[in-house]
Amino acid sequence: MKYGVVVFPSKKLQDLANSYRKRYDPHYELITPHMTLKDAFEADESEIKGIITEIAEIAKRHKPFTLHTTRVSTFAPLTNTLYFKVDPNPEIIAIHEDLHSDFFGGPPKFSYVPHITIAQKMSDSEHADIFGQLKMVGVDHEETIDRFHILYQLEDGSWTVYDTFRLTGDEE
Amino acid sequence: MKYGVVVFPSKKLQDLANSYRKRYDPHYELITPHMTLKDAFEADESEIKGIITEIAEIAKRHKPFTLHTTRVSTFAPLTNTLYFKVDPNPEIIAIHEDLHSDFFGGPPKFSYVPHITIAQKMSDSEHADIFGQLKMVGVDHEETIDRFHILYQLEDGSWTVYDTFRLTGDEE
Repeated sequence: MKYGVVVFPSKKLQDLANSYRKRYDPHYELITPHMTLKDAFEADESEIKGIITEIAEIAKRHKPFTLHTTRVSTFAPLTNTLYFKVDPNPEIIAIHEDLHSDFFGGPPKFSYVPHITIAQKMSDSEHADIFGQLKMVGVDHEETIDRFHILYQLEDGSWTVYDTFRLTGDEE
Repeated sequence: MKYGVVVFPSKKLQDLANSYRKRYDPHYELITPHMTLKDAFEADESEIKGIITEIAEIAKRHKPFTLHTTRVSTFAPLTNTLYFKVDPNPEIIAIHEDLHSDFFGGPPKFSYVPHITIAQKMSDSEHADIFGQLKMVGVDHEETIDRFHILYQLEDGSWTVYDTFRLTGDEE
């Protein structure tokens, strides 16, 4: 089964992201707007219990953090994906690193760019057009994130939340 | 803001429900298959904290329960809604009652029929047709539910999980 770890921002920020996703993101129906902390990974029933225990420990070690979106940016030319760029503060980077420790198979192949996707799988011309419109748009929004979730994927591609972890910072 | 409390069943049961929902449920995109424990209700930021504390206490009082789907049934003539009927065992009824205590404004207007919706908002003839096909289908499936979630609704009608509560049964 496929699992992933994400943050769901506030309703306000999700509504803003959805105003773009509705038109420009074919994954709009599969999951509500989110910031991925750990990309989709395979785990079977015998593995997932240990993984969740480890993730719960990680959540306990970290305090709530600030999610600050600064502007609309793009992953082009890698992919034609537009996103709200999230300021990669040390707190977010540290959680991401803990979720990619040796226990989880080590660091990801690409460096981590915290973001909330608002458009993807566009043609080159559509991408250039929409990015041209949106890069001038300010998305200077700040909020506190005090939790994240582990989700599993259904056969149709949609995601269901399995568990919620509070960032308590108890274990300093 | 609108909140609701639901159980998400296993991937297996959700995939089965989605095989029908994809075609027959216009809410297919808004939320993955679920059994509602508490219908959508309004709460503002000042209220929700106390509500969540109360729900967390309720989860602590109840143990994991068996979700047993027995057959496809309908809410017609009230509404043209088809669902997997869930056996209303005492454990489910007790959690539902606790989520409709005086604290929450008392019992709901209608008696509680635990279910997982698979089709809705059909015309009378479509309803008759699909129900005719599905009422012969057995959905004799049993699983253990050890958690439920509180969700909030976005402007586009979709639902985001806010928190997860484990049924621990600690406080007996």
